[in-house]
Amino acid sequence: MLSINTCLSTDFVKYQNNIENKVVVIIDILRATTCMITAFMEGASHIRAFNDPDSCFQMRKDKYLVAGERDGEKLEGFDLGNSPFDYINLGVKDQKIAITTTNGTKALLASESAVKVVICSFLNISATCTDLIKENKDVLIFCAGWKGLVNTEDTLCAGMIISKIKDFGFELNDDASVLAFDFYKQNSSNILEVLKSSAHAKRLKKFVSPEKDIEYAAQLDVTSIIPIFEKDLILDQDFT
Amino acid sequence: MLSINTCLSTDFVKYQNNIENKVVVIIDILRATTCMITAFMEGASHIRAFNDPDSCFQMRKDKYLVAGERDGEKLEGFDLGNSPFDYINLGVKDQKIAITTTNGTKALLASESAVKVVICSFLNISATCTDLIKENKDVLIFCAGWKGLVNTEDTLCAGMIISKIKDFGFELNDDASVLAFDFYKQNSSNILEVLKSSAHAKRLKKFVSPEKDIEYAAQLDVTSIIPIFEKDLILDQDFT
Repeated sequence: MLSINTCLSTDFVKYQNNIENKVVVIIDILRATTCMITAFMEGASHIRAFNDPDSCFQMRKDKYLVAGERDGEKLEGFDLGNSPFDYINLGVKDQKIAITTTNGTKALLASESAVKVVICSFLNISATCTDLIKENKDVLIFCAGWKGLVNTEDTLCAGMIISKIKDFGFELNDDASVLAFDFYKQNSSNILEVLKSSAHAKRLKKFVSPEKDIEYAAQLDVTSIIPIFEKDLILDQDFT
Repeated sequence: MLSINTCLSTDFVKYQNNIENKVVVIIDILRATTCMITAFMEGASHIRAFNDPDSCFQMRKDKYLVAGERDGEKLEGFDLGNSPFDYINLGVKDQKIAITTTNGTKALLASESAVKVVICSFLNISATCTDLIKENKDVLIFCAGWKGLVNTEDTLCAGMIISKIKDFGFELNDDASVLAFDFYKQNSSNILEVLKSSAHAKRLKKFVSPEKDIEYAAQLDVTSIIPIFEKDLILDQDFT
């Protein structure tokens, strides 16, 4: 049997073994991975991820659009924030994008040693699962979380991935995967509500997540695009 | 409304605010808190917790029984390991106990600034919840987890506490509490099974958890004893 491990927060990546033999699935529903997938749906050529906003911003001189947020707010002077509608409204066809986010970028950079790193959200979840089954390797599902803590929306997506692949030769290999799978079973008909209540918790802390972004992020299977992370670049798998 | 926050692993305590205004509930089902409660059920006078096995062992010269495990195994030369039956079989009536464990002690020592720290397991869960409602303060549920990672048995106990107190003026204040509560809802009639499958995961890694210890730890409400942690000592609340 192949194994599924789940990392519920970027803080937990240090406990993961054998990443170099695994396919890593990065999830940051609100909103980094949802935005990245949207960028490719809108025809972006590639994305570069940065931990540091300054390094990201400097990519402007190489004709990159720069995308950045901290604590849920667009960074001053940046072309794009962390709303998927920023990408749709600005138009990113054939554009190169440099992105820095609070949690998603950290998760990407922590996964560099993996066999393959795929970018997942509810938008491309079935395509991603088909790809995981085809790859036929151990899987690490890596939830970006929120500032080191677990969050419900990434955990829900992790649980849905587990539900879709587990009968194809995979077994749950840690307690975090069991938690995610059971959380999904409890909320499988309830995706938008989970996202709304999670965002509500954040709104209380003044990290505003507009309603329409949440409804957008809760859409299932609107694309078969799978962005992958390879040598510092995020690319549409079908165009590599 | 009073708030409930949940810390799913000792790694997450650094993100918790205002511990000094909260009642902290420590959970380490397999097996530190289950053992501590058993010690008081058997008439122990008090327990002292140590991070460091050597400092713990030195308490022998002050006529303490010394209890210690690392990675699920009893430490060499110690009187007690981490099986509750060690406490029952050895006899600990009126004895002082010095304890060091992998995860539970860390959780205790991280909670020193709280208004009150209570020791919980399934053995005393209803008594603990009655006490939390009576205290009428914000609550932090602190799962010891397993070497920094989340585990299912502590999360299940956290979810059961939430289910028992939430209609008495408490609201879920973070996504970790939502995860724990939903995990409990999914498994409320399934406590022994959750503990067994969690232990199974550990056994795979050679951390042996005997079946009878697990059945013992899964018992609900066999005592009304609530140990509390106060000035380096763990005491039976009713005898302080």
